[in-house]
Amino acid sequence: MEIVQKIKTGDIRAVARLIRDIDDNIPEAREVLKELYSATGNAYVIGVTGAPGVGKSTLVDQMVSHLRKSGKTVGVLAVDPTSPFSGGAILGDRVRMQRHSMDEGVFIRSMATRGAFGGLTQSTRSAIDVLDAMGKDYVIVETVGVGQDEVDIVRSSDTTLIVLVPGMGDDVQALKAGILEVGDIFVINKSDREGVDKTVGDIRLMIEMGEKRYKDGWRPPILTTQAAFDKGIRELLDEIEKHRLHLLSNKTMLSKLRYEKAKSDLSEMIKDKIAKEIFIDITSSGEFEEAIKSIIDKKIDPYTACDKIVSAKLKSNIR
Amino acid sequence: MEIVQKIKTGDIRAVARLIRDIDDNIPEAREVLKELYSATGNAYVIGVTGAPGVGKSTLVDQMVSHLRKSGKTVGVLAVDPTSPFSGGAILGDRVRMQRHSMDEGVFIRSMATRGAFGGLTQSTRSAIDVLDAMGKDYVIVETVGVGQDEVDIVRSSDTTLIVLVPGMGDDVQALKAGILEVGDIFVINKSDREGVDKTVGDIRLMIEMGEKRYKDGWRPPILTTQAAFDKGIRELLDEIEKHRLHLLSNKTMLSKLRYEKAKSDLSEMIKDKIAKEIFIDITSSGEFEEAIKSIIDKKIDPYTACDKIVSAKLKSNIR
Repeated sequence: MEIVQKIKTGDIRAVARLIRDIDDNIPEAREVLKELYSATGNAYVIGVTGAPGVGKSTLVDQMVSHLRKSGKTVGVLAVDPTSPFSGGAILGDRVRMQRHSMDEGVFIRSMATRGAFGGLTQSTRSAIDVLDAMGKDYVIVETVGVGQDEVDIVRSSDTTLIVLVPGMGDDVQALKAGILEVGDIFVINKSDREGVDKTVGDIRLMIEMGEKRYKDGWRPPILTTQAAFDKGIRELLDEIEKHRLHLLSNKTMLSKLRYEKAKSDLSEMIKDKIAKEIFIDITSSGEFEEAIKSIIDKKIDPYTACDKIVSAKLKSNIR
Repeated sequence: MEIVQKIKTGDIRAVARLIRDIDDNIPEAREVLKELYSATGNAYVIGVTGAPGVGKSTLVDQMVSHLRKSGKTVGVLAVDPTSPFSGGAILGDRVRMQRHSMDEGVFIRSMATRGAFGGLTQSTRSAIDVLDAMGKDYVIVETVGVGQDEVDIVRSSDTTLIVLVPGMGDDVQALKAGILEVGDIFVINKSDREGVDKTVGDIRLMIEMGEKRYKDGWRPPILTTQAAFDKGIRELLDEIEKHRLHLLSNKTMLSKLRYEKAKSDLSEMIKDKIAKEIFIDITSSGEFEEAIKSIIDKKIDPYTACDKIVSAKLKSNIR
């Protein structure tokens, strides 16, 4: 396909169109992705996650500048789940990182898809593949929040940064389960704020307590940055490079990581496919609407209604 | 069923066991839920969501105290998504809200389920039903973060509080899409902190901009609290009561809300059921493992592998 060639040679417009098609869930995009797949696997993927307000986009902006100075090309995906209520996307990349807008070596895009289920995770992974196939040396994926989507998306990263700010550690316990174990590097941004030592201490304690989990021999470092003043960014990129070399140094670990990534990719896709094939079909049926009415009138409980609808759909089908 | 009767009469141990069974995804729990359903629909459900560190649990703790003083009974569900990596739950309710532990009128539990997909949302909704059926006047559901799960869970609430702290508004844009539209009341906690006026102003601006969305005539108020010092809690409960009366005042709106809730409940259950019936079956198959190996070796792309696996499973099955 012509478009496949265009993307492999870095044609910006072709890439932008394909990512938009992925985000809009256009079926043809999938055919292009199939063809592109053999050209993937070369970019180094950095995940950047953290709550709103910690300064992720400024941090990513500075990382891009430093990587560009070293002659590396960079793709950035900002993942902004669309509100399920309005269906509208947020401004995202349109207002941010303007300073790189004239640089051909940087490609910035935001993802907003909110599919039936599994949608955002899969479309983001596909978009990573596209930036990888177009030849970017680094792909940075920025996610808002600490939800399950973020954790799933972050599994596609080679190195994951967890960004925090001082004084957010009040319920460090709440952060722990969702976030600690996916973090390869912890970044305390806005480190000029009060309470930075306590936050560093809290994170360090959590890492020590969770030590047995770090079987692969990597103990996540904790760095302080002031992204707005370009402080600590070079050190952060040095740590990312160390982590990259660490991953490359261990064949068993590397093949385990590849296995996990492929497994997780395929699982997401299967979920998505099942959603499209069955779920959407069910929920657009008359039986579904009838069931809702009966549930409201308490003529049936939702569990029984669900069982009936799903069995009718799958009747004597599976196995 | 005996257990159904026990739960309807508020038997604490029976309730605790059922919620644990829901959280652990025990099939028998579903049968109990079917029987309980007709006893639901009486509790008023309050959702409390916000990023880690904003003081949600202290706020909920104070709300519980005030509601108890007014003679109301309260159930609290703290939703803590388990890390998908360790499978372990976090301490959650074991260390918190100890002060209510001797009060029979309060029932506090945390949910940690992380099912195949849709799991957390559905199990939380089921747990709300249980606390409702046991006769609690209020059920407070506390969620960490601002991810899709949170938004889905929050759809079960009658009144949703969005909790923020001053100084987190740096990327208010990021919050906007995911959170603004689900908020019935905005709470700026830790309001003694610097920047409270700016945060209130930012939220107010967002509400004004989004005004057309508030078709039902409710304009979300913005309250300031200092939960740790019990400041602003009574005013918050007054606003919740106002919102409750607002909902009750409009029959069209109320039936729309009930429809949306039933629809969303049933959708989640169907997703979950499909997951159990098909997805888990697929991913535990030999073909799935074979496909992962082929993807790693680049013998096949994941999109094609997915299509093959799903079609084989559904072949001549659906319709």
